[in-house]
Amino acid sequence: MQKSEEIVAEEALDGSRFMPGLSVDCVIFGYHERELKILVSKFKNTSYYSLPGGFIKRNEDADEAAHRVLFERTGLRDIYLNQFYTFGNTHRANPEPMKSVMLANGIEFNGNHWMLQRFISIGYYALVNYTRAEPKPDFFSESCLWYDIDDVPKLMQDHRLIVKKALETLRNNVNRKFIGVNLLQDQFTMGDIQKLHETILGEKLNRTGFHRKMLNSGLLKRIGKKKTGGSHRAPYLYVFHSDEE
Amino acid sequence: MQKSEEIVAEEALDGSRFMPGLSVDCVIFGYHERELKILVSKFKNTSYYSLPGGFIKRNEDADEAAHRVLFERTGLRDIYLNQFYTFGNTHRANPEPMKSVMLANGIEFNGNHWMLQRFISIGYYALVNYTRAEPKPDFFSESCLWYDIDDVPKLMQDHRLIVKKALETLRNNVNRKFIGVNLLQDQFTMGDIQKLHETILGEKLNRTGFHRKMLNSGLLKRIGKKKTGGSHRAPYLYVFHSDEE
Repeated sequence: MQKSEEIVAEEALDGSRFMPGLSVDCVIFGYHERELKILVSKFKNTSYYSLPGGFIKRNEDADEAAHRVLFERTGLRDIYLNQFYTFGNTHRANPEPMKSVMLANGIEFNGNHWMLQRFISIGYYALVNYTRAEPKPDFFSESCLWYDIDDVPKLMQDHRLIVKKALETLRNNVNRKFIGVNLLQDQFTMGDIQKLHETILGEKLNRTGFHRKMLNSGLLKRIGKKKTGGSHRAPYLYVFHSDEE
Repeated sequence: MQKSEEIVAEEALDGSRFMPGLSVDCVIFGYHERELKILVSKFKNTSYYSLPGGFIKRNEDADEAAHRVLFERTGLRDIYLNQFYTFGNTHRANPEPMKSVMLANGIEFNGNHWMLQRFISIGYYALVNYTRAEPKPDFFSESCLWYDIDDVPKLMQDHRLIVKKALETLRNNVNRKFIGVNLLQDQFTMGDIQKLHETILGEKLNRTGFHRKMLNSGLLKRIGKKKTGGSHRAPYLYVFHSDEE
């Protein structure tokens, strides 16, 4: 049975269910064909754009919370999320945007409401193929969409800083195994993988050096040649190695 | 004026001053001459050993809290701390050790005391020269000492896991600039730096490859030759580059 909107909103805001002062925020990077995007929600009847985020239940691991929140807020599931940084500055504590968001949903907060207090937020990120991930807005959102990394709308609170830190981490970790986990289904030529790295890093890479490094890295598995109509110069196809192999 | 012990203990436990459910824990690695140690406190009149940890004040950034807590618990200050992971599993929530620790200090908790609830802890780490850092135990501790990384006493709660994760992070970041920040005062030969890396990584490194990589890394600054009594084979001395230069 579908829950009524009131029950959905009430449950989402019931402070006794959650760890006070703690949230999770997800930076979901989407890649395809030299385009790097991130997933951004817009709150209903407001001009506030935000990362998909939410709270940690009292009986829930922080990692579980990140997966649940991402699913509830965007409809995306089975995504490998990596914790990258916890945002704990006092200047994060600006209750005004959250007040407006709730008012736009017909919910009025008094001054001491738990959602208006200071929050420390644990950041998680992932890299997915955005053509395979179709986000859906939740009850509180009017949209949940992929935006080009260079064309992200103004984000509420310190979410721009969270994106910046996530992008730095993605760049620092571009050669680490877990970065490929959500792309395991995708087949790449070495040229495609170079484009992926160049797009993430925002710079051109030397072809010979890159190919040598990737072949030596153990990150990739060769699975055959690309069908290009019979040419013997057809490039090899690769997938990211999964942990099981 | 020295505060009385009662006031120290009372202030340290006053829940209204702190973010509920949140703590910081510090993994301070100490290095000198092929020895890697970590700093561990022993709670007074108990058999509990722990990392230096504490709580985040309501008006305090998480990073500030980490520096304050490290100073209060160990006497160490002016140490560059790096946030590395937030420990948010529900299975961390075991109130028994904390109950015993407080009882040993003459403080009895009732069942709902804020310190007995679930905590999510933000981990910070640093690498220092342990010969330059003289820790002192705080009010709650009977000792605060450097222990060989391979000979750490049994730690309370999930602190062994926190150390493990910190060591993984230190190893992954051994070539990053911030790792050297607390060692800026120390002068090394290239052989000394190779020993530092080998000790952290727990493995032998190829001399020629290591020296070439370090010289190209921009991490080091050559400051002259080591005085060895006139030999022309005297090795060069290096310091870690500070950010200012």
